[in-house]
Amino acid sequence: MQMSKRISGFQASPIRRLSPYARAAEERGVHVIHLNIGQPDIRTPREAIEAVHAYNEPFIAYGTSEGELVLRKGLCDYYKKYNATVSPDEIMITTGGSEALQFVFMTLCDPYDEVIIPEPFYTNVSTFAATAMVNLVPVTSRIDDAFVLPSIEDFEKRITKKTMAILLCSPNNPTGHVYTRQELADLLELCRRHDIFLVVDEVYREFCYDGESFTSVLTFPEYGERTICIDSFSKRFSMCGARIGAIVSHNKDVLSSAMKLAQARLCPPAIEQVAATAALCAPEEYVEAVRQEYEKRRNTLVAGIQEIPGCKVSRPRGAFYFVVDFPVDDAEKFALFMLRDFSWEGNTVMFAPAEDFYVTKDLGRTQARIAYVLNEEELKKAVKCLEEGLKAYRRLNSII
Amino acid sequence: MQMSKRISGFQASPIRRLSPYARAAEERGVHVIHLNIGQPDIRTPREAIEAVHAYNEPFIAYGTSEGELVLRKGLCDYYKKYNATVSPDEIMITTGGSEALQFVFMTLCDPYDEVIIPEPFYTNVSTFAATAMVNLVPVTSRIDDAFVLPSIEDFEKRITKKTMAILLCSPNNPTGHVYTRQELADLLELCRRHDIFLVVDEVYREFCYDGESFTSVLTFPEYGERTICIDSFSKRFSMCGARIGAIVSHNKDVLSSAMKLAQARLCPPAIEQVAATAALCAPEEYVEAVRQEYEKRRNTLVAGIQEIPGCKVSRPRGAFYFVVDFPVDDAEKFALFMLRDFSWEGNTVMFAPAEDFYVTKDLGRTQARIAYVLNEEELKKAVKCLEEGLKAYRRLNSII
Repeated sequence: MQMSKRISGFQASPIRRLSPYARAAEERGVHVIHLNIGQPDIRTPREAIEAVHAYNEPFIAYGTSEGELVLRKGLCDYYKKYNATVSPDEIMITTGGSEALQFVFMTLCDPYDEVIIPEPFYTNVSTFAATAMVNLVPVTSRIDDAFVLPSIEDFEKRITKKTMAILLCSPNNPTGHVYTRQELADLLELCRRHDIFLVVDEVYREFCYDGESFTSVLTFPEYGERTICIDSFSKRFSMCGARIGAIVSHNKDVLSSAMKLAQARLCPPAIEQVAATAALCAPEEYVEAVRQEYEKRRNTLVAGIQEIPGCKVSRPRGAFYFVVDFPVDDAEKFALFMLRDFSWEGNTVMFAPAEDFYVTKDLGRTQARIAYVLNEEELKKAVKCLEEGLKAYRRLNSII
Repeated sequence: MQMSKRISGFQASPIRRLSPYARAAEERGVHVIHLNIGQPDIRTPREAIEAVHAYNEPFIAYGTSEGELVLRKGLCDYYKKYNATVSPDEIMITTGGSEALQFVFMTLCDPYDEVIIPEPFYTNVSTFAATAMVNLVPVTSRIDDAFVLPSIEDFEKRITKKTMAILLCSPNNPTGHVYTRQELADLLELCRRHDIFLVVDEVYREFCYDGESFTSVLTFPEYGERTICIDSFSKRFSMCGARIGAIVSHNKDVLSSAMKLAQARLCPPAIEQVAATAALCAPEEYVEAVRQEYEKRRNTLVAGIQEIPGCKVSRPRGAFYFVVDFPVDDAEKFALFMLRDFSWEGNTVMFAPAEDFYVTKDLGRTQARIAYVLNEEELKKAVKCLEEGLKAYRRLNSII
């Protein structure tokens, strides 16, 4: 029996293709260091877990479709720290940032409408666009330019009658670029001229390094009607499995339209909302300590990989990823080699080949996304593995 | 700025239209008895809440996209009680039955494909179909026939080249009908002849009355390739807010296709899966006591409403809803009257006008869906309210 063509058209991500080899390596007793995923090993705030332990409702009831008011109020206070004034009715709690992205595509776009997005970008956006039948139109950002925002002209020439929005992620997954206030202002002016939305995924907001200051799209009230912020508790509070995210917008039509989708799926998970509400009460020091920890990890891993001959790295200023260009013919083949044919002192490394982070064909073939969410000891081992692995791979494939 | 047409096309459900009037009534000090929603007041199993209290992971990590193995194994044991043999890899855990329905539409159907469904049906199915751009083709079941399955010929004449599946809900929301083994067998034979799927939403499986025995679509192994079961923990364990559901199928292609959607949204909520796993360990007596409680409530409410002059009720044999035909011109107008203009001894009743449960125009206009999830004392008050309210409404509108 045939499945739908829209599904059969989805490629399994390279991570999914590589995962069986990672499992096989582990079964052979090789320790696989996972630089491929953004699963932090940092503790969730004590406040969140304690709130879960204190959960004592007689029954786990349906909540409201827009999410619990106490959580939305907590978010309003939190956004104040980023100079954004938001009211609870401008927030919809979603089942992860994932659902927020899905709702935004469905809310802004009809089938065959277009959303412009700088590539490389977070691969799952492709699936959400595909299920909403939205066409993603890429504007290429380049490793040699440190992945800064492509020129406004590059965006403008891609705008058609079908363009509904520009979608950014800042700090960026996978590049680590943090969009500046000027970059956002220029894009917003472009959006105003063409009457389209600017949607910014800000789930890595806390994680800026080198004194870089983060600018939220919510701090441009003069463009409030055309800005939408995607948010999530996953990374900030190391609670990826909680699946609590949000859509934030000053545009009432966006929220009331998204509400029709929210009502159909009834409500976000109840207990996790309790955890999220409490996580917002974690002391400033929690988030700052986590930020410093990631900055240290970034320094270790970036410095290590930069020293490997032939590796080109775009030093990330935010989030917990960066893109590396390997001196190989094909990063996915190299990744497969690392898992299937290589180990160094019982270790090997898994990373995410970057080709799928691009829409434009043939871009990113020698690149990979590296996540630095593991502790420093693991990261140091990973550098050594990559260095030795590269030598072995290049020898085997006669790459000079 | 324009929102997408697909969203603007969605009607707010009558419940959403009525809700502001319910809130206003409550603000006036009127006690609104909610017969409009399926939010049980039964306790969640102690085991589930205790498991939440024992949750003690250092961080709330991403789980696997298909759901935790321990939960899927627990479900396999549970299905054995219903004579269904299922392996863990034939189960995908979803974020509620809602997500399961969404995934199934997206997996089986391309845009403009068709799914045949007996009407009246659970209204949110319309939204899930619309977001997947699937056309729902109704076959009318009738209150005068106790909402039994329409004839196989009625289904067959609606099958086109675009038909991908027939979708049932058993025990049925909103009618309370429990499809018999023979009804399922006849439909499966029809599905085999036309090479389409039979999808059955079985989330009310436990709630069958009058000794009625439930038949799961999973107990037809000879049709295993074309059967899909939608499941949920919401009603069974009174944990609607947990958002834990499942897709169960012997068809590997269905699950591997749905997996592409599951991977994009990463995983179902973590702590709620812990709760669900523990809920499966609740003693048999828990579910049986809940079933008996609902049966008692059904008896009270059905008997009460049947005695109101002019009300026609289809006695439900399962789930916790039934459809009533009121002696009025328009059930939504009557619902509005009850909330805005009426109270009896400080009480009034909210119910769900049934017109939206039908696709076919003009059907169900005088009908409503009644949920009997509240305790008996409330239900008795509700009957009295409805009786007095009907008299007042008919007098006011000169209905003889």
